Amino acid sequence: MTGQQVLLTPDELEAALHAVGAARYHNLHPFHARLHSGKARRSEVQAWALNRYCYQSMIPIKDATVLARMDDAAVRREWRHRLEDHDGLAPGDGGIERWLKLTDSLGFSRSYVMSTAGILPGTRFAVEAYVHFCAEKTLLEAVASSLTELFSPKIISERVSGMLAHYDYVSRDTLAYFSARPTQARRDSDFALAYVKAHATTPGTQALAIRALEFKCDVLWAQLDALWGAYVDGHVPPGVWDPASSPEGAMGSRGAS
Amino acid sequence: MTGQQVLLTPDELEAALHAVGAARYHNLHPFHARLHSGKARRSEVQAWALNRYCYQSMIPIKDATVLARMDDAAVRREWRHRLEDHDGLAPGDGGIERWLKLTDSLGFSRSYVMSTAGILPGTRFAVEAYVHFCAEKTLLEAVASSLTELFSPKIISERVSGMLAHYDYVSRDTLAYFSARPTQARRDSDFALAYVKAHATTPGTQALAIRALEFKCDVLWAQLDALWGAYVDGHVPPGVWDPASSPEGAMGSRGAS
Repeated sequence: MTGQQVLLTPDELEAALHAVGAARYHNLHPFHARLHSGKARRSEVQAWALNRYCYQSMIPIKDATVLARMDDAAVRREWRHRLEDHDGLAPGDGGIERWLKLTDSLGFSRSYVMSTAGILPGTRFAVEAYVHFCAEKTLLEAVASSLTELFSPKIISERVSGMLAHYDYVSRDTLAYFSARPTQARRDSDFALAYVKAHATTPGTQALAIRALEFKCDVLWAQLDALWGAYVDGHVPPGVWDPASSPEGAMGSRGAS
Repeated sequence: MTGQQVLLTPDELEAALHAVGAARYHNLHPFHARLHSGKARRSEVQAWALNRYCYQSMIPIKDATVLARMDDAAVRREWRHRLEDHDGLAPGDGGIERWLKLTDSLGFSRSYVMSTAGILPGTRFAVEAYVHFCAEKTLLEAVASSLTELFSPKIISERVSGMLAHYDYVSRDTLAYFSARPTQARRDSDFALAYVKAHATTPGTQALAIRALEFKCDVLWAQLDALWGAYVDGHVPPGVWDPASSPEGAMGSRGAS
């Protein structure tokens, strides 16, 4: 699609963006299937939660980077919801805090999780690539890269129901992060999709928007690739969290709900 | 080491930097062993060369970023060797050109290789992390991150002798990139090591230099992790070079020497 020369109608552009998700969203990754089908070992669930904290914690930084490039107060006001969702309205509130409840329940100390000392380089490089992309590309591309949220309600529903059914150390309470996300993601992706449809009005900018969404799918996919290599195949790189030797995340060191 | 509070002597610092390599350099990665021991399939050798082009091609951009931050003409003059080595003194010369001779011999078109359209997101994210690191961290850290060259003569020697012994489609001519590298790397790492020993003169800056070298080892390691997942284990991510379906790199499509 990125070589296209034809101007798409807004609805055709929307269909093209949905086609990116159908081909490349990380619900197609074998790690997702493993996680929600109950096949993941506890150490894999732990590594997923630990590594994904790095992604969660950078989302408000990414969103502030995008917000800082918007010259329309109405658009900034909409985008500000994202900061509120992740950072909360008060201490103890917000998506990052809810993610830490999950890592708490898996036996990690908050200081260890928040230091990101144990995460995979592959996670860190992918997350930083996303932040840099949003700082360096056009605003349209930055907004378009957020459109993976179009596809997230479905993956969240599979993940939550599968994890609740299969892992006795996971509960609705520890997965609270995901309760709020589908509603937030729908509101945010409705806005971002309308923005992209309104601003990608040439073949060139439409191609950039589609490519931006492909890039973001790569960011999510690469994180699951890194988890698979390290914790499913067992090639744990030097210097990262190792379930075989780290006191962090040891069974029974903290209450798993 | 990064939490150290003790001031090291310059020689102790040098030993600590060597210890990073002994623990984390990518000669310890199973992909390296596979490549030089003759176990890699042709598609793995191809994927390695294709992906590493992305790394090679960004090295002069990384080095120009570092050079632009140096305020001493004598230091810049030394660093300029790196640009000359990779970009050459005339058309057809330089390390990038020699790398393309390798990808030529493996059946890839130059336009495909140079587009980097087929490379793994994990490769791209790691390489971009390196460039961003050198732009955003202190100059000392940027210089220290180059010190993986302390360890490269040994890995190059293993790689070249192993590949020549085991793969009939590889020759001294197609591996010409590596002929020049040990001498260049020794000159460059001598300079960078002296720079780091002269400028990392507090426990804090010594810790940053050590951490910078760990980071760079992660950059190299993550590239081999990504290759392993995609081309040894066969989890080829969407949108990248796929030996099973791409016309690029097909056996016999171009002469393998």
